[in-house]
Amino acid sequence: MSSQSQIASAKTRQRRTKPAEVRIDELMNAAQTLFLEKGVEATTISEIIASVGVAKGTFYHYFESKQHIIEALKKRYIDYFIEALDQAVAQCDPEDWVSQFKVWVSANIQTYLDSYPVHDIVFGVHHHERKNNEKNMVVEQLLGILTGGEQAGIWRLEQPHLTALLIYCGVHGVADEAIANQLKDISDFSEHIAQQYLNMLRAE
Amino acid sequence: MSSQSQIASAKTRQRRTKPAEVRIDELMNAAQTLFLEKGVEATTISEIIASVGVAKGTFYHYFESKQHIIEALKKRYIDYFIEALDQAVAQCDPEDWVSQFKVWVSANIQTYLDSYPVHDIVFGVHHHERKNNEKNMVVEQLLGILTGGEQAGIWRLEQPHLTALLIYCGVHGVADEAIANQLKDISDFSEHIAQQYLNMLRAE
Repeated sequence: MSSQSQIASAKTRQRRTKPAEVRIDELMNAAQTLFLEKGVEATTISEIIASVGVAKGTFYHYFESKQHIIEALKKRYIDYFIEALDQAVAQCDPEDWVSQFKVWVSANIQTYLDSYPVHDIVFGVHHHERKNNEKNMVVEQLLGILTGGEQAGIWRLEQPHLTALLIYCGVHGVADEAIANQLKDISDFSEHIAQQYLNMLRAE
Repeated sequence: MSSQSQIASAKTRQRRTKPAEVRIDELMNAAQTLFLEKGVEATTISEIIASVGVAKGTFYHYFESKQHIIEALKKRYIDYFIEALDQAVAQCDPEDWVSQFKVWVSANIQTYLDSYPVHDIVFGVHHHERKNNEKNMVVEQLLGILTGGEQAGIWRLEQPHLTALLIYCGVHGVADEAIANQLKDISDFSEHIAQQYLNMLRAE
């Protein structure tokens, strides 16, 4: 056995011992990188497994299809998005609902600007689906802040879910505009938007 | 010549004399009907021309491709949408900006609910494009009302375009929710939404 094939064989053994979650991560990262570079359509499963250095059977052990790995990337993207906003909001005084709201708006816009290429891959053509999980989860997160502010007597909500949805959709839409205009510093932009919604919330 | 072929030949002559705009309309209507029935992907140009009863050359005289006829349908849909809102708003007292705004919101939601299957065909996978003409035209229309109300001293606008975009995106988003929930009567729904935006607009 040559030293090269010994190394290869050691690598193979090493790879085989990797836990499932590590292997799944490697496949998802490789797929996401290729999707970003070449587009989803142009990327083949063969390229994904070549990039990780595993056999086709390994891919199919974890994912049924390219669509299935996109679904996994979508779930991961949503978790990342929600987590980024949660962390930003967690920096605020837990009693200061106005700050929490403002930070939620700016973190939403900033996180979207930072990550829209992945957003566009995982949502792609299905983004306009009228029911989607991402929307619901982010609306629920916002609803937590709106409800907190209401209980603290800062604003009143007649139809909290509808208000949260109005705000979610408006923020997502103007963030698209910010991306289209290649806005670099979002601070004034998001401050102005948050202020307008605060006016909406506070008015009797 | 048989009587049948005389009729056919008369029909052909008759068809040839149709003005271009009538022929274009026939082709667009046939395409839209087939797209609604079978989906865009599954519809062929052969089916469109068969439905109108013209030769392939006639189709290609007016449209380069299926994509080209979709673009024409999109332009027609946008014109229809803008016109529907214009007509609704034109029923209001031209000095009553609050009514104009409320009517714009409810006509927007109602027109979208009435026509979303066509909307989904003509925008389809490209809906999430960050710059699109429909958005700009409807935002401009709304901006006319917002500017009118500002000049009348009813509200103040720091960044009119951004405010119009926030409202446009919010209304479009909640209308998607109304479609998903198969809402039949939008009157309370759109009244509540318009009121929230009026609160936003009127707050100092």
